[in-house]
Amino acid sequence: MTLILGIDPGSRITGFGVIRDGGRGCEYIASGCIRTGSGSLPERLQAVYRGVTEIIRSHGPVTMGIEQVFMARNADSALKLGQARGAAIVAAVEAGLEIAEYTATQVKQAIVGSGGADKRQVQMMVMHLLRLVQKPQIDASDALAIALCHAHHRQSLIPHGLDGARRRGGRLRL
Amino acid sequence: MTLILGIDPGSRITGFGVIRDGGRGCEYIASGCIRTGSGSLPERLQAVYRGVTEIIRSHGPVTMGIEQVFMARNADSALKLGQARGAAIVAAVEAGLEIAEYTATQVKQAIVGSGGADKRQVQMMVMHLLRLVQKPQIDASDALAIALCHAHHRQSLIPHGLDGARRRGGRLRL
Repeated sequence: MTLILGIDPGSRITGFGVIRDGGRGCEYIASGCIRTGSGSLPERLQAVYRGVTEIIRSHGPVTMGIEQVFMARNADSALKLGQARGAAIVAAVEAGLEIAEYTATQVKQAIVGSGGADKRQVQMMVMHLLRLVQKPQIDASDALAIALCHAHHRQSLIPHGLDGARRRGGRLRL
Repeated sequence: MTLILGIDPGSRITGFGVIRDGGRGCEYIASGCIRTGSGSLPERLQAVYRGVTEIIRSHGPVTMGIEQVFMARNADSALKLGQARGAAIVAAVEAGLEIAEYTATQVKQAIVGSGGADKRQVQMMVMHLLRLVQKPQIDASDALAIALCHAHHRQSLIPHGLDGARRRGGRLRL
């Protein structure tokens, strides 16, 4: 049983999701958004750092998944995203978490079974896999999707996991 | 008398410089580079975070200057630079430092007196202003230039500083 954190960093909003991977499926623990407010750059980055540190302290995840960015819209938005990403990763690594990066395609592949899935499909599958009755906020949902993707890839690294076979080959199943 | 840290972050090398602003000129304290090595992204960002934290602990600066980035070469390098910048800023703000950003033009203007100065001219003036006998490594020199620029701008914010008049209007003088 492993507690997994998923983080979707952004310069204004950083989504987070915490799930418990019980080996035979994942359970929802918590999700939400760190809003960085309208302060100075150092204050906003501190909000991301302290927010992630606090989530780790409260829920005790031991590993974190984060989306790998390949094509940022432009250099300016890439810089801003990089700063938030740096603050989030430092918080996790300083708290002793193991960290893995996944491309957007890997996340979609793990959740929906197709790398070309749209955001709405991912959100529906996140609700289904975690048996949520309410639709999570979009940043939180993206973070939960990354956490589920991380659970899937971790599991497929365990050669004789209880349900290794069930999880291989495309996507997570309930 | 104020201890000032200048930081020039990069994805591979982060330059740092510490100076003492005595009101009537600045004195060299320390400078160097944090090399992030060839580890994973979290390890490299942790090296920046811990390096900056250690420099602050060793020398006790109370304020930090950092270069503001306007035009990164491309989105990929902007993302990498942003991550290192995020790690460095979080280290400083968590250590309680006040942080100011300066454009490359502001740094050159403060040090050489011209926003169009080249890197070599900046390096020569850094050596002159801090009475250095040896040429510092280029990343360290850039960080010292940012620290000197920060000293200059801080001073000009003090309305009746002892040497306020001497420092206004372009650049730092010995």
